[in-house]
Amino acid sequence: MNAGQRIEQALAAALDLPEAAATPPLLRRAMHHAVFPGGARLRPRLTLATAAACGRPDSDLALAAATAIELLHCASLVHDDMPCFDNAALRRGRPSVHAQFGEALALLAGDGLIVLAFEVIARAAARPGQGQRGAQVLAIIAQAVGPGEGIVAGQAWECEAAVDVAHYHRAKTGALFAGAAAAGAAAAGAEPQRWRALGERLGEAYQIADDLADALGEARVTGKPAGQDAALGRPNAVRELGVAGALARLQALTEAAIAAIPDCAGREELEAIIRGQARRLLPAHLGAPALQDSQVA
Amino acid sequence: MNAGQRIEQALAAALDLPEAAATPPLLRRAMHHAVFPGGARLRPRLTLATAAACGRPDSDLALAAATAIELLHCASLVHDDMPCFDNAALRRGRPSVHAQFGEALALLAGDGLIVLAFEVIARAAARPGQGQRGAQVLAIIAQAVGPGEGIVAGQAWECEAAVDVAHYHRAKTGALFAGAAAAGAAAAGAEPQRWRALGERLGEAYQIADDLADALGEARVTGKPAGQDAALGRPNAVRELGVAGALARLQALTEAAIAAIPDCAGREELEAIIRGQARRLLPAHLGAPALQDSQVA
Repeated sequence: MNAGQRIEQALAAALDLPEAAATPPLLRRAMHHAVFPGGARLRPRLTLATAAACGRPDSDLALAAATAIELLHCASLVHDDMPCFDNAALRRGRPSVHAQFGEALALLAGDGLIVLAFEVIARAAARPGQGQRGAQVLAIIAQAVGPGEGIVAGQAWECEAAVDVAHYHRAKTGALFAGAAAAGAAAAGAEPQRWRALGERLGEAYQIADDLADALGEARVTGKPAGQDAALGRPNAVRELGVAGALARLQALTEAAIAAIPDCAGREELEAIIRGQARRLLPAHLGAPALQDSQVA
Repeated sequence: MNAGQRIEQALAAALDLPEAAATPPLLRRAMHHAVFPGGARLRPRLTLATAAACGRPDSDLALAAATAIELLHCASLVHDDMPCFDNAALRRGRPSVHAQFGEALALLAGDGLIVLAFEVIARAAARPGQGQRGAQVLAIIAQAVGPGEGIVAGQAWECEAAVDVAHYHRAKTGALFAGAAAAGAAAAGAEPQRWRALGERLGEAYQIADDLADALGEARVTGKPAGQDAALGRPNAVRELGVAGALARLQALTEAAIAAIPDCAGREELEAIIRGQARRLLPAHLGAPALQDSQVA
């Protein structure tokens, strides 16, 4: 089973934990709608790739961390789409959760996915000998989504009058990528802090790709309506650097991410995965000029 | 330091974790508004009392569990008050979080408190030798608030056309009381399942007290506007049983809770705490007819 299949299967299993049978039917459907079909699953792939690079390709705790991270990412999208934030009726080419199920169920689906994410970690951490690493993984993930420097903080900076743009992106996007890499390392028993820089660079690269997709009217990467940044007055790298400048920055960040990979057994394979993912981030009609095919495994 | 002081101090410390300095200022204020000043802190008191009855009055993990449970309770109130649910402008006699800070920050304050609750457990579970118990406590608490049979499920039943009232109350109120007792026992190294019945009876008793307060126009217990159940067409024990019947049921549930205390070292002290809390639940002007002073420690 490849990484993508493992992730989809683990997400489905998380939504089907024993107590799922008792879940109110509409809530259950709303949570499923928020998670399937997914996007590129970049963050959980990074967690699994990091754990594998650290010598633990089959770690149950790493798979639980990957699953939790994707559930939390999906929860943040559900809440971010709601009328009091982006008021986005579309997500991944389909109605957003609140557009389909109403605001109350969207709010609860997000809450439910957050709680479920932590339950998934709890179950993996409860296995013999996994308690300590589980607590470490739990702390890393909680901080990556939390109100201090995680996703919740990033969304809340949108409510402040004055915002440092780099800080905003670091919290809203970078923190979960950094946490995804760190959690994979921690689950594998490696020192997690050394792995954060890799995730941070990938988070920045993803942000540029997101800006390109938004500015160029390309919904393939984000699956949401294009032109939102201009409409909502948000910063966008394409407006600042131009298309060529943004593409060059995306390539530079990909190389910086690869340079940030700590010494590990699976360095070459991880490098190939990162180059492959970076290529997938490019808007399709740009023909991947920034990253040559020869660079992609 | 008594239990109430320990809980207030631990809640303040949770809102002041290292990363709190980076929290966007309005979000930080909204989260503080949601937690302070608090209500009766019944659930965390139950967790600490249970851990003490199991012989661990000073357990750091029990205090973390108690803190997490109260943070999650506060988060549920913030989201429950929002316009897409109860649309309640008042909570604990003050503006609700969305009334004071707007919907976006209320949504994020709730999300932030949920994440923070799990981070508090992660920190306690990371201490040497606490990993396994920490994972157990984490799972208990996640299920008590989750989409299967916890608070999120309870709120979501309000969105369904057909609802079993007992099931609804069990999820919305009972599950967190049961989890509070079970988590205290687990943190103390006792078998948690045996402690759930105590919490369930107390949750039912609290529900009756809440119904009495709502029906009798007494905001002391709930701190929210009275008459909401009738206005929103919700079930209420006073409408079903009358005032005297509801009071009798409250007393019977308190006795049932006491009868459900498993064998433990601190049984007598726990019984006294429960009688004291039950008396505090009664609407003030009823003069506590259901529970005599002689019954209260």
